[in-house]
Amino acid sequence: MTGMTDLAPSVMTLAEVVAFLEREFPQIHHGGRSYHLEAVGPASARMRMDHHERHLRPGGTVSGPAMMALADLALYAAILANIGPVALAVTTNLSFNFLRRPGATGLVGEARLLKLGRRLAVGEVLITAAGAEDLVCHATGTYSIPPRR
Amino acid sequence: MTGMTDLAPSVMTLAEVVAFLEREFPQIHHGGRSYHLEAVGPASARMRMDHHERHLRPGGTVSGPAMMALADLALYAAILANIGPVALAVTTNLSFNFLRRPGATGLVGEARLLKLGRRLAVGEVLITAAGAEDLVCHATGTYSIPPRR
Amino acid sequence: MTGMTDLAPSVMTLAEVVAFLEREFPQIHHGGRSYHLEAVGPASARMRMDHHERHLRPGGTVSGPAMMALADLALYAAILANIGPVALAVTTNLSFNFLRRPGATGLVGEARLLKLGRRLAVGEVLITAAGAEDLVCHATGTYSIPPRR
Amino acid sequence: MTGMTDLAPSVMTLAEVVAFLEREFPQIHHGGRSYHLEAVGPASARMRMDHHERHLRPGGTVSGPAMMALADLALYAAILANIGPVALAVTTNLSFNFLRRPGATGLVGEARLLKLGRRLAVGEVLITAAGAEDLVCHATGTYSIPPRR
Repeated sequence: MTGMTDLAPSVMTLAEVVAFLEREFPQIHHGGRSYHLEAVGPASARMRMDHHERHLRPGGTVSGPAMMALADLALYAAILANIGPVALAVTTNLSFNFLRRPGATGLVGEARLLKLGRRLAVGEVLITAAGAEDLVCHATGTYSIPPRR
Repeated sequence: MTGMTDLAPSVMTLAEVVAFLEREFPQIHHGGRSYHLEAVGPASARMRMDHHERHLRPGGTVSGPAMMALADLALYAAILANIGPVALAVTTNLSFNFLRRPGATGLVGEARLLKLGRRLAVGEVLITAAGAEDLVCHATGTYSIPPRR
Repeated sequence: MTGMTDLAPSVMTLAEVVAFLEREFPQIHHGGRSYHLEAVGPASARMRMDHHERHLRPGGTVSGPAMMALADLALYAAILANIGPVALAVTTNLSFNFLRRPGATGLVGEARLLKLGRRLAVGEVLITAAGAEDLVCHATGTYSIPPRR
Repeated sequence: MTGMTDLAPSVMTLAEVVAFLEREFPQIHHGGRSYHLEAVGPASARMRMDHHERHLRPGGTVSGPAMMALADLALYAAILANIGPVALAVTTNLSFNFLRRPGATGLVGEARLLKLGRRLAVGEVLITAAGAEDLVCHATGTYSIPPRR
Protein backbone atom coordinates (compact mmCIF):
# COMPACT_ATOMS: atom_id res chain seq x y z
CA MET A 1 0.00 0.00 0.00
CA THR A 2 1.34 3.43 -0.83
CA GLY A 3 0.43 6.68 0.82
CA MET A 4 -0.26 8.42 -2.47
CA THR A 5 -1.58 7.15 -5.76
CA ASP A 6 -1.15 8.72 -9.22
CA LEU A 7 2.47 9.52 -8.49
CA ALA A 8 4.19 11.85 -10.91
CA PRO A 9 7.88 11.40 -11.73
CA SER A 10 10.22 13.39 -9.52
CA VAL A 11 11.02 16.84 -10.95
CA MET A 12 14.73 16.81 -10.13
CA THR A 13 17.27 14.10 -10.95
CA LEU A 14 19.50 12.47 -8.37
CA ALA A 15 22.49 14.50 -9.63
CA GLU A 16 20.52 17.75 -9.37
CA VAL A 17 19.42 17.06 -5.79
CA VAL A 18 22.95 16.05 -4.76
CA ALA A 19 24.37 19.26 -6.28
CA PHE A 20 21.72 21.36 -4.53
CA LEU A 21 22.43 19.80 -1.12
CA GLU A 22 26.20 20.24 -1.58
CA ARG A 23 25.72 23.92 -2.34
CA GLU A 24 23.08 24.74 0.29
CA PHE A 25 24.02 22.40 3.17
CA PRO A 26 27.83 22.06 3.20
CA GLN A 27 27.69 21.86 7.03
CA ILE A 28 26.29 18.33 6.96
CA HIS A 29 29.77 17.19 5.96
CA HIS A 30 31.45 18.91 8.91
CA GLY A 31 33.93 16.48 10.42
CA GLY A 32 33.98 14.23 7.37
CA ARG A 33 31.67 13.28 4.53
CA SER A 34 29.28 10.57 5.70
CA TYR A 35 25.79 11.25 4.25
CA HIS A 36 25.19 10.10 0.67
CA LEU A 37 21.98 10.42 -1.31
CA GLU A 38 21.59 7.19 -3.29
CA ALA A 39 18.26 7.55 -5.08
CA VAL A 40 15.27 9.82 -5.61
CA GLY A 41 11.94 8.81 -7.14
CA PRO A 42 8.26 9.65 -7.16
CA ALA A 43 7.52 10.61 -3.54
CA SER A 44 10.69 8.92 -2.30
CA ALA A 45 14.42 9.15 -1.60
CA ARG A 46 17.11 6.89 -0.12
CA MET A 47 19.97 8.32 1.96
CA ARG A 48 22.94 6.34 3.29
CA MET A 49 25.04 7.24 6.34
CA ASP A 50 28.54 5.79 6.54
CA HIS A 51 29.94 4.35 9.68
CA HIS A 52 31.97 7.14 11.37
CA GLU A 53 33.43 7.48 14.84
CA ARG A 54 31.56 10.73 15.52
CA HIS A 55 28.21 8.98 15.10
CA LEU A 56 28.90 6.38 17.78
CA ARG A 57 27.75 5.94 21.37
CA PRO A 58 28.92 3.65 24.19
CA GLY A 59 28.71 -0.01 23.27
CA GLY A 60 29.45 0.83 19.65
CA THR A 61 25.91 1.77 18.71
CA VAL A 62 24.99 4.65 16.39
CA SER A 63 23.81 7.77 18.24
CA GLY A 64 20.21 8.90 18.16
CA PRO A 65 21.08 12.36 16.78
CA ALA A 66 22.99 10.79 13.87
CA MET A 67 19.87 8.75 12.99
CA MET A 68 17.65 11.81 13.42
CA ALA A 69 19.84 13.79 11.02
CA LEU A 70 19.68 10.93 8.52
CA ALA A 71 15.85 10.87 8.66
CA ASP A 72 15.53 14.65 8.30
CA LEU A 73 17.92 14.71 5.32
CA ALA A 74 16.20 11.79 3.57
CA LEU A 75 12.77 13.42 3.89
CA TYR A 76 14.13 16.80 2.82
CA ALA A 77 15.68 15.20 -0.28
CA ALA A 78 12.42 13.42 -1.16
CA ILE A 79 10.48 16.68 -0.94
CA LEU A 80 13.09 18.68 -2.84
CA ALA A 81 13.24 16.11 -5.65
CA ASN A 82 9.46 16.24 -6.00
CA ILE A 83 8.73 19.96 -5.74
CA GLY A 84 11.97 21.36 -7.18
CA PRO A 85 14.29 24.02 -5.78
CA VAL A 86 11.72 26.82 -5.95
CA ALA A 87 11.09 27.01 -2.23
CA LEU A 88 12.93 25.71 0.80
CA ALA A 89 10.79 23.41 2.89
CA VAL A 90 11.00 24.00 6.64
CA THR A 91 10.83 21.13 9.15
CA THR A 92 7.92 21.68 11.53
CA ASN A 93 7.61 18.28 13.22
CA LEU A 94 9.78 15.18 13.54
CA SER A 95 8.87 12.10 15.56
CA PHE A 96 11.06 9.05 16.11
CA ASN A 97 10.56 5.55 17.45
CA PHE A 98 13.87 3.88 18.21
CA LEU A 99 13.29 0.14 17.78
CA ARG A 100 16.58 -1.77 17.98
CA ARG A 101 20.17 -0.80 18.64
CA PRO A 102 22.19 -0.98 15.45
CA GLY A 103 25.79 -2.13 15.69
CA ALA A 104 28.72 0.07 14.65
CA THR A 105 27.63 0.07 11.06
CA GLY A 106 26.39 2.26 8.25
CA LEU A 107 22.66 2.99 8.06
CA VAL A 108 20.17 3.43 5.25
CA GLY A 109 17.11 5.71 5.42
CA GLU A 110 14.25 5.05 2.99
CA ALA A 111 11.99 8.12 2.85
CA ARG A 112 8.47 7.93 1.47
CA LEU A 113 6.11 10.89 1.21
CA LEU A 114 2.60 10.26 2.53
CA LYS A 115 1.30 13.65 1.44
CA LEU A 116 2.69 16.38 -0.80
CA GLY A 117 0.30 19.30 -0.59
CA ARG A 118 0.74 22.94 -1.55
CA ARG A 119 1.46 23.98 2.02
CA LEU A 120 2.50 20.82 3.88
CA ALA A 121 4.43 17.66 3.07
CA VAL A 122 4.35 14.62 5.36
CA GLY A 123 6.50 11.54 5.09
CA GLU A 124 7.97 8.58 6.91
CA VAL A 125 11.50 7.14 6.99
CA LEU A 126 12.45 3.53 7.63
CA ILE A 127 16.02 3.22 8.92
CA THR A 128 17.85 -0.09 8.74
CA ALA A 129 21.45 -1.15 9.22
CA ALA A 130 23.21 -1.49 5.88
CA GLY A 131 22.55 -4.96 4.52
CA ALA A 132 19.99 -5.86 7.21
CA GLU A 133 16.19 -5.82 7.17
CA ASP A 134 14.95 -5.25 10.71
CA LEU A 135 14.10 -1.61 11.36
CA VAL A 136 16.33 0.24 13.81
CA CYS A 137 14.25 3.44 13.71
CA HIS A 138 10.95 4.65 12.28
CA ALA A 139 10.48 8.39 11.78
CA THR A 140 7.70 10.66 10.58
CA GLY A 141 8.13 14.29 9.59
CA THR A 142 6.07 17.31 8.55
CA TYR A 143 7.48 20.14 6.45
CA SER A 144 5.99 23.53 5.70
CA ILE A 145 6.32 24.60 2.06
CA PRO A 146 6.55 28.39 1.71
CA PRO A 147 4.33 30.16 -0.82
CA ARG A 148 5.98 30.29 -4.25
CA ARG A 149 7.08 33.69 -5.30
CA MET B 1 10.06 -3.88 3.45
CA THR B 2 8.74 -5.13 6.74
CA GLY B 3 9.66 -3.90 10.16
CA MET B 4 10.36 -7.37 11.48
CA THR B 5 11.73 -10.46 9.82
CA ASP B 6 11.32 -14.09 10.93
CA LEU B 7 7.68 -13.49 11.77
CA ALA B 8 5.96 -16.21 13.76
CA PRO B 9 2.27 -16.99 13.17
CA SER B 10 -0.11 -15.06 15.43
CA VAL B 11 -0.90 -16.92 18.64
CA MET B 12 -4.64 -16.14 18.70
CA THR B 13 -7.14 -16.64 15.89
CA LEU B 14 -9.38 -13.87 14.58
CA ALA B 15 -12.36 -15.41 16.41
CA GLU B 16 -10.41 -15.56 19.68
CA VAL B 17 -9.36 -11.91 19.46
CA VAL B 18 -12.89 -10.79 18.57
CA ALA B 19 -14.32 -12.71 21.54
CA PHE B 20 -11.69 -11.23 23.86
CA LEU B 21 -12.43 -7.65 22.74
CA GLU B 22 -16.19 -8.20 23.10
CA ARG B 23 -15.71 -9.41 26.65
CA GLU B 24 -13.12 -6.89 27.82
CA PHE B 25 -14.08 -3.75 25.87
CA PRO B 26 -17.88 -3.69 25.49
CA GLN B 27 -17.78 0.11 25.78
CA ILE B 28 -16.36 0.53 22.28
CA HIS B 29 -19.82 -0.35 21.01
CA HIS B 30 -21.55 2.34 23.09
CA GLY B 31 -24.01 4.16 20.83
CA GLY B 32 -24.01 1.39 18.20
CA ARG B 33 -21.67 -1.28 16.93
CA SER B 34 -19.27 0.25 14.41
CA TYR B 35 -15.77 -1.25 14.93
CA HIS B 36 -15.13 -4.66 13.35
CA LEU B 37 -11.90 -6.64 13.44
CA GLU B 38 -11.47 -8.18 9.98
CA ALA B 39 -8.14 -9.97 10.14
CA VAL B 40 -5.16 -10.77 12.33
CA GLY B 41 -1.82 -12.12 11.17
CA PRO B 42 1.86 -12.22 12.02
CA ALA B 43 2.57 -8.76 13.43
CA SER B 44 -0.60 -7.32 11.90
CA ALA B 45 -4.32 -6.69 12.19
CA ARG B 46 -7.02 -4.97 10.14
CA MET B 47 -9.91 -3.10 11.79
CA ARG B 48 -12.89 -1.56 9.98
CA MET B 49 -15.02 1.33 11.24
CA ASP B 50 -18.50 1.69 9.80
CA HIS B 51 -19.94 4.99 8.75
CA HIS B 52 -22.00 6.27 11.71
CA GLU B 53 -23.49 9.67 12.50
CA ARG B 54 -21.65 9.95 15.82
CA HIS B 55 -18.27 9.77 14.06
CA LEU B 56 -18.97 12.77 11.81
CA ARG B 57 -17.86 16.40 11.86
CA PRO B 58 -19.01 19.48 9.93
CA GLY B 59 -18.76 19.04 6.19
CA GLY B 60 -19.51 15.34 6.55
CA THR B 61 -15.96 14.30 7.38
CA VAL B 62 -15.04 11.65 9.95
CA SER B 63 -13.91 13.08 13.30
CA GLY B 64 -10.30 12.89 14.44
CA PRO B 65 -11.18 11.07 17.67
CA ALA B 66 -13.06 8.37 15.73
CA MET B 67 -9.92 7.78 13.63
CA MET B 68 -7.73 7.83 16.74
CA ALA B 69 -9.92 5.18 18.38
CA LEU B 70 -9.70 3.07 15.22
CA ALA B 71 -5.89 3.25 15.20
CA ASP B 72 -5.59 2.42 18.91
CA LEU B 73 -7.94 -0.56 18.56
CA ALA B 74 -6.20 -1.92 15.47
CA LEU B 75 -2.78 -1.79 17.15
CA TYR B 76 -4.15 -3.28 20.35
CA ALA B 77 -5.66 -6.16 18.36
CA ALA B 78 -2.38 -6.78 16.50
CA ILE B 79 -0.46 -6.96 19.79
CA LEU B 80 -3.07 -9.12 21.50
CA ALA B 81 -3.17 -11.57 18.59
CA ASN B 82 0.61 -11.91 18.69
CA ILE B 83 1.31 -12.13 22.44
CA GLY B 84 -1.92 -13.77 23.59
CA PRO B 85 -4.29 -12.75 26.40
CA VAL B 86 -1.71 -13.27 29.15
CA ALA B 87 -1.14 -9.60 29.82
CA LEU B 88 -3.02 -6.44 28.93
CA ALA B 89 -0.86 -4.04 26.94
CA VAL B 90 -1.11 -0.39 28.00
CA THR B 91 -0.94 2.47 25.48
CA THR B 92 1.94 4.77 26.36
CA ASN B 93 2.27 6.90 23.20
CA LEU B 94 0.11 7.59 20.16
CA SER B 95 1.03 9.99 17.37
CA PHE B 96 -1.14 10.91 14.38
CA ASN B 97 -0.62 12.69 11.09
CA PHE B 98 -3.94 13.64 9.50
CA LEU B 99 -3.32 13.69 5.75
CA ARG B 100 -6.58 14.08 3.85
CA ARG B 101 -10.20 14.59 4.85
CA PRO B 102 -12.18 11.44 4.27
CA GLY B 103 -15.77 11.81 3.13
CA ALA B 104 -18.73 10.48 5.13
CA THR B 105 -17.58 6.91 4.71
CA GLY B 106 -16.33 3.86 6.55
CA LEU B 107 -12.62 3.61 7.26
CA VAL B 108 -10.11 0.78 7.35
CA GLY B 109 -7.06 0.68 9.66
CA GLU B 110 -4.17 -1.62 8.72
CA ALA B 111 -1.93 -2.12 11.76
CA ARG B 112 1.59 -3.44 11.43
CA LEU B 113 3.93 -4.07 14.35
CA LEU B 114 7.44 -2.65 13.93
CA LYS B 115 8.71 -4.15 17.16
CA LEU B 116 7.33 -6.72 19.56
CA GLY B 117 9.69 -6.88 22.50
CA ARG B 118 9.22 -8.31 25.96
CA ARG B 119 8.46 -4.89 27.48
CA LEU B 120 7.43 -2.66 24.59
CA ALA B 121 5.56 -3.07 21.32
CA VAL B 122 5.64 -0.40 18.59
CA GLY B 123 3.50 -0.29 15.49
CA GLU B 124 2.04 1.87 12.77
CA VAL B 125 -1.46 2.11 11.32
CA LEU B 126 -2.41 3.18 7.83
CA ILE B 127 -5.98 4.49 7.65
CA THR B 128 -7.79 4.71 4.33
CA ALA B 129 -11.38 5.31 3.31
CA ALA B 130 -13.11 2.02 2.54
CA GLY B 131 -12.42 1.13 -1.08
CA ALA B 132 -9.88 3.93 -1.61
CA GLU B 133 -6.08 3.91 -1.54
CA ASP B 134 -4.87 7.35 -0.52
CA LEU B 135 -4.04 7.54 3.18
CA VAL B 136 -6.31 9.71 5.31
CA CYS B 137 -4.26 9.22 8.49
CA HIS B 138 -0.95 7.68 9.54
CA ALA B 139 -0.51 6.71 13.18
CA THR B 140 2.25 5.24 15.30
CA GLY B 141 1.82 3.80 18.78
CA THR B 142 3.85 2.40 21.65
CA TYR B 143 2.44 -0.07 24.18
CA SER B 144 3.91 -1.24 27.46
CA ILE B 145 3.60 -4.98 28.05
CA PRO B 146 3.34 -5.83 31.74
CA PRO B 147 5.56 -8.56 33.19
CA ARG B 148 3.98 -11.99 32.83
CA ARG B 149 2.84 -13.52 36.06
CA MET C 1 8.30 30.17 31.18
CA THR C 2 5.72 30.68 28.48
CA GLY C 3 5.92 29.63 24.88
CA MET C 4 5.03 33.05 23.58
CA THR C 5 5.69 36.50 24.95
CA ASP C 6 3.77 39.72 24.20
CA LEU C 7 0.46 37.89 24.39
CA ALA C 8 -2.55 39.77 23.10
CA PRO C 9 -5.96 39.29 24.73
CA SER C 10 -8.08 36.58 23.13
CA VAL C 11 -10.32 37.92 20.35
CA MET C 12 -13.43 35.92 21.31
CA THR C 13 -15.06 35.69 24.73
CA LEU C 14 -15.81 32.41 26.46
CA ALA C 15 -19.51 32.76 25.62
CA GLU C 16 -18.72 33.39 21.94
CA VAL C 17 -16.48 30.33 21.68
CA VAL C 18 -19.03 28.13 23.46
CA ALA C 19 -21.80 29.32 21.10
CA PHE C 20 -19.59 28.68 18.08
CA LEU C 21 -18.73 25.13 19.18
CA GLU C 22 -22.41 24.37 19.91
CA ARG C 23 -23.37 25.48 16.43
CA GLU C 24 -20.52 23.92 14.46
CA PHE C 25 -19.77 20.73 16.43
CA PRO C 26 -23.07 19.44 17.85
CA GLN C 27 -21.79 15.85 17.34
CA ILE C 28 -19.39 16.11 20.27
CA HIS C 29 -22.45 15.83 22.50
CA HIS C 30 -23.66 12.61 20.86
CA GLY C 31 -24.64 10.20 23.61
CA GLY C 32 -24.85 12.92 26.27
CA ARG C 33 -23.31 16.29 26.98
CA SER C 34 -19.92 15.79 28.65
CA TYR C 35 -17.42 18.36 27.26
CA HIS C 36 -17.55 21.85 28.78
CA LEU C 37 -15.33 24.80 27.91
CA GLU C 38 -14.50 26.56 31.18
CA ALA C 39 -12.14 29.37 30.18
CA VAL C 40 -10.33 31.01 27.29
CA GLY C 41 -7.44 33.45 27.54
CA PRO C 42 -4.41 34.75 25.70
CA ALA C 43 -3.01 31.65 23.97
CA SER C 44 -4.95 29.32 26.25
CA ALA C 45 -8.18 27.46 26.99
CA ARG C 46 -9.45 25.05 29.64
CA MET C 47 -11.89 22.24 28.76
CA ARG C 48 -13.55 19.87 31.24
CA MET C 49 -14.84 16.37 30.48
CA ASP C 50 -17.47 14.93 32.80
CA HIS C 51 -17.37 11.39 34.04
CA HIS C 52 -19.61 9.34 31.71
CA GLU C 53 -20.03 5.60 31.21
CA ARG C 54 -19.19 5.79 27.50
CA HIS C 55 -15.72 7.18 28.27
CA LEU C 56 -14.73 4.24 30.48
CA ARG C 57 -12.53 1.21 29.93
CA PRO C 58 -11.98 -1.98 31.94
CA GLY C 59 -10.90 -1.31 35.48
CA GLY C 60 -12.90 1.91 35.52
CA THR C 61 -10.27 4.04 33.79
CA VAL C 62 -11.05 6.73 31.20
CA SER C 63 -10.48 5.60 27.61
CA GLY C 64 -7.61 6.92 25.52
CA PRO C 65 -9.92 8.19 22.76
CA ALA C 66 -11.98 10.19 25.28
CA MET C 67 -8.76 11.89 26.44
CA MET C 68 -7.64 12.44 22.87
CA ALA C 69 -10.95 14.12 22.03
CA LEU C 70 -10.59 16.33 25.10
CA ALA C 71 -7.09 17.44 24.05
CA ASP C 72 -8.14 18.14 20.46
CA LEU C 73 -11.15 20.16 21.59
CA ALA C 74 -9.17 22.17 24.13
CA LEU C 75 -6.51 23.12 21.57
CA TYR C 76 -9.14 23.90 18.96
CA ALA C 77 -10.92 26.21 21.43
CA ALA C 78 -7.66 27.98 22.32
CA ILE C 79 -6.90 28.65 18.65
CA LEU C 80 -10.46 29.72 17.84
CA ALA C 81 -10.56 32.12 20.78
CA ASN C 82 -7.29 33.71 19.64
CA ILE C 83 -7.78 33.98 15.87
CA GLY C 84 -11.57 34.38 15.75
CA PRO C 85 -14.14 32.49 13.66
CA VAL C 86 -12.75 33.68 10.32
CA ALA C 87 -11.21 30.37 9.31
CA LEU C 88 -11.58 26.84 10.56
CA ALA C 89 -8.28 25.40 11.74
CA VAL C 90 -7.59 21.83 10.62
CA THR C 91 -5.78 19.33 12.86
CA THR C 92 -2.64 18.07 11.09
CA ASN C 93 -0.77 16.33 13.93
CA LEU C 94 -1.61 15.12 17.42
CA SER C 95 0.78 13.31 19.71
CA PHE C 96 -0.02 11.85 23.12
CA ASN C 97 1.96 10.52 26.06
CA PHE C 98 -0.27 8.59 28.46
CA LEU C 99 1.36 8.93 31.88
CA ARG C 100 -0.92 7.54 34.59
CA ARG C 101 -4.28 5.81 34.59
CA PRO C 102 -6.98 8.14 35.88
CA GLY C 103 -9.77 6.63 37.93
CA ALA C 104 -13.42 6.81 36.88
CA THR C 105 -13.47 10.57 37.17
CA GLY C 106 -13.90 13.76 35.23
CA LEU C 107 -10.82 15.22 33.53
CA VAL C 108 -9.53 18.73 32.87
CA GLY C 109 -7.47 19.73 29.82
CA GLU C 110 -5.38 22.90 30.04
CA ALA C 111 -4.37 23.98 26.52
CA ARG C 112 -1.54 26.42 25.92
CA LEU C 113 -0.46 27.65 22.50
CA LEU C 114 3.29 27.51 21.85
CA LYS C 115 3.03 29.20 18.47
CA LEU C 116 0.24 31.04 16.68
CA GLY C 117 1.50 31.83 13.19
CA ARG C 118 -0.36 32.84 10.07
CA ARG C 119 -0.32 29.30 8.66
CA LEU C 120 0.31 27.00 11.64
CA ALA C 121 -0.61 26.91 15.30
CA VAL C 122 1.12 24.56 17.76
CA GLY C 123 0.11 23.89 21.33
CA GLU C 124 0.26 21.51 24.24
CA VAL C 125 -2.41 20.19 26.58
CA LEU C 126 -1.92 19.02 30.15
CA ILE C 127 -4.66 16.61 31.25
CA THR C 128 -5.28 15.95 34.93
CA ALA C 129 -8.03 14.24 36.87
CA ALA C 130 -10.49 16.79 38.26
CA GLY C 131 -9.13 18.04 41.57
CA ALA C 132 -5.77 16.28 41.24
CA GLU C 133 -2.37 17.57 40.13
CA ASP C 134 -0.42 14.67 38.63
CA LEU C 135 -0.64 14.59 34.85
CA VAL C 136 -2.55 11.69 33.33
CA CYS C 137 -1.76 12.68 29.74
CA HIS C 138 0.40 15.20 27.89
CA ALA C 139 -0.53 16.07 24.32
CA THR C 140 0.88 18.28 21.58
CA GLY C 141 -0.96 19.32 18.45
CA THR C 142 -0.40 21.18 15.19
CA TYR C 143 -3.20 22.91 13.29
CA SER C 144 -3.18 24.33 9.79
CA ILE C 145 -4.88 27.73 9.49
CA PRO C 146 -6.44 28.23 6.05
CA PRO C 147 -5.76 31.47 4.16
CA ARG C 148 -8.26 34.16 5.09
CA ARG C 149 -10.68 35.04 2.36
CA MET D 1 1.37 23.18 37.31
CA THR D 2 3.94 20.44 37.48
CA GLY D 3 3.75 17.01 35.95
CA MET D 4 4.63 15.28 39.20
CA THR D 5 3.95 16.18 42.77
CA ASP D 6 5.82 15.02 45.87
CA LEU D 7 9.15 15.49 44.12
CA ALA D 8 12.15 13.98 45.84
CA PRO D 9 15.55 15.68 45.62
CA SER D 10 17.71 14.47 42.74
CA VAL D 11 19.96 11.55 43.73
CA MET D 12 23.08 12.80 41.90
CA THR D 13 24.68 16.23 42.13
CA LEU D 14 25.43 18.37 39.09
CA ALA D 15 29.14 17.51 39.36
CA GLU D 16 28.39 13.79 39.52
CA VAL D 17 26.17 13.90 36.44
CA VAL D 18 28.73 15.96 34.50
CA ALA D 19 31.50 13.50 35.39
CA PHE D 20 29.32 10.55 34.36
CA LEU D 21 28.49 12.09 30.97
CA GLU D 22 32.17 12.94 30.33
CA ARG D 23 33.15 9.36 31.01
CA GLU D 24 30.32 7.58 29.19
CA PHE D 25 29.59 9.93 26.28
CA PRO D 26 32.89 11.53 25.18
CA GLN D 27 31.62 11.49 21.56
CA ILE D 28 29.20 14.35 22.18
CA HIS D 29 32.24 16.62 22.22
CA HIS D 30 33.51 15.39 18.84
CA GLY D 31 34.48 18.46 16.79
CA GLY D 32 34.62 20.74 19.84
CA ARG D 33 33.07 21.02 23.26
CA SER D 34 29.67 22.71 22.96
CA TYR D 35 27.16 20.98 25.29
CA HIS D 36 27.24 22.04 28.95
CA LEU D 37 25.00 20.78 31.73
CA GLU D 38 24.15 23.79 33.89
CA ALA D 39 21.77 22.43 36.51
CA VAL D 40 19.97 19.35 37.77
CA GLY D 41 17.06 19.24 40.20
CA PRO D 42 14.03 17.23 41.22
CA ALA D 43 12.67 15.89 37.91
CA SER D 44 14.61 18.49 35.91
CA ALA D 45 17.85 19.48 34.19
CA ARG D 46 19.14 22.43 32.15
CA MET D 47 21.59 21.93 29.27
CA ARG D 48 23.25 24.72 27.26
CA MET D 49 24.57 24.40 23.70
CA ASP D 50 27.18 26.92 22.59
CA HIS D 51 27.10 28.60 19.25
CA HIS D 52 29.38 26.57 16.93
CA GLU D 53 29.84 26.55 13.16
CA ARG D 54 29.02 22.84 12.87
CA HIS D 55 25.55 23.38 14.32
CA LEU D 56 24.56 25.94 11.67
CA ARG D 57 22.37 25.77 8.57
CA PRO D 58 21.85 28.19 5.66
CA GLY D 59 20.71 31.61 6.77
CA GLY D 60 22.69 31.25 9.99
CA THR D 61 20.09 29.23 11.85
CA VAL D 62 20.85 26.34 14.19
CA SER D 63 20.32 22.91 12.61
CA GLY D 64 17.46 20.65 13.62
CA PRO D 65 19.80 17.76 14.54
CA ALA D 66 21.80 20.02 16.88
CA MET D 67 18.57 20.94 18.69
CA MET D 68 17.47 17.31 18.77
CA ALA D 69 20.77 16.28 20.35
CA LEU D 70 20.36 19.05 22.93
CA ALA D 71 16.87 17.83 23.86
CA ASP D 72 17.94 14.18 24.12
CA LEU D 73 20.94 15.08 26.30
CA ALA D 74 18.91 17.33 28.59
CA LEU D 75 16.27 14.65 29.18
CA TYR D 76 18.91 11.96 29.65
CA ALA D 77 20.65 14.13 32.26
CA ALA D 78 17.37 14.77 34.10
CA ILE D 79 16.64 11.04 34.30
CA LEU D 80 20.19 10.13 35.28
CA ALA D 81 20.24 12.73 38.05
CA ASN D 82 16.99 11.38 39.44
CA ILE D 83 17.50 7.61 39.22
CA GLY D 84 21.28 7.46 39.62
CA PRO D 85 23.88 5.64 37.53
CA VAL D 86 22.53 2.17 38.28
CA ALA D 87 21.01 1.59 34.87
CA LEU D 88 21.38 3.28 31.52
CA ALA D 89 18.10 4.62 30.22
CA VAL D 90 17.44 3.96 26.52
CA THR D 91 15.64 6.48 24.31
CA THR D 92 12.53 4.88 22.81
CA ASN D 93 10.65 7.89 21.43
CA LEU D 94 11.47 11.51 20.69
CA SER D 95 9.07 14.00 19.16
CA PHE D 96 9.86 17.59 18.16
CA ASN D 97 7.86 20.65 17.20
CA PHE D 98 10.08 23.30 15.61
CA LEU D 99 8.42 26.62 16.37
CA ARG D 100 10.68 29.51 15.36
CA ARG D 101 14.06 29.76 13.66
CA PRO D 102 16.71 30.76 16.17
CA GLY D 103 19.49 33.02 14.97
CA ALA D 104 23.16 31.98 15.03
CA THR D 105 23.19 31.77 18.79
CA GLY D 106 23.60 29.43 21.72
CA LEU D 107 20.54 27.55 22.92
CA VAL D 108 19.23 26.44 26.30
CA GLY D 109 17.18 23.27 26.86
CA GLU D 110 15.07 23.05 30.04
CA ALA D 111 14.08 19.43 30.65
CA ARG D 112 11.24 18.50 32.97
CA LEU D 113 10.18 14.95 33.75
CA LEU D 114 6.43 14.29 33.49
CA LYS D 115 6.71 10.72 34.74
CA LEU D 116 9.49 8.74 36.35
CA GLY D 117 8.27 5.16 36.66
CA ARG D 118 10.14 1.95 37.30
CA ARG D 119 10.15 1.02 33.61
CA LEU D 120 9.50 4.24 31.70
CA ALA D 121 10.40 7.89 32.09
CA VAL D 122 8.67 10.63 30.06
CA GLY D 123 9.66 14.27 29.86
CA GLU D 124 9.49 17.45 27.86
CA VAL D 125 12.16 19.97 26.87
CA LEU D 126 11.63 23.66 26.17
CA ILE D 127 14.39 25.07 23.95
CA THR D 128 14.98 28.80 23.77
CA ALA D 129 17.74 30.98 22.35
CA ALA D 130 20.16 32.04 25.07
CA GLY D 131 18.76 35.15 26.74
CA ALA D 132 15.41 35.04 24.92
CA GLU D 133 12.01 33.73 26.02
CA ASP D 134 10.09 32.61 22.94
CA LEU D 135 10.36 28.86 22.38
CA VAL D 136 12.30 27.74 19.31
CA CYS D 137 11.53 24.05 19.83
CA HIS D 138 9.37 21.87 22.08
CA ALA D 139 10.33 18.23 22.49
CA THR D 140 8.93 15.23 24.32
CA GLY D 141 10.79 12.00 24.97
CA THR D 142 10.24 8.52 26.40
CA TYR D 143 13.03 6.43 27.89
CA SER D 144 13.04 2.77 28.85
CA ILE D 145 14.70 2.05 32.19
CA PRO D 146 16.29 -1.41 32.27
CA PRO D 147 15.59 -3.69 35.23
CA ARG D 148 18.06 -3.13 38.06
CA ARG D 149 20.51 -5.96 38.56
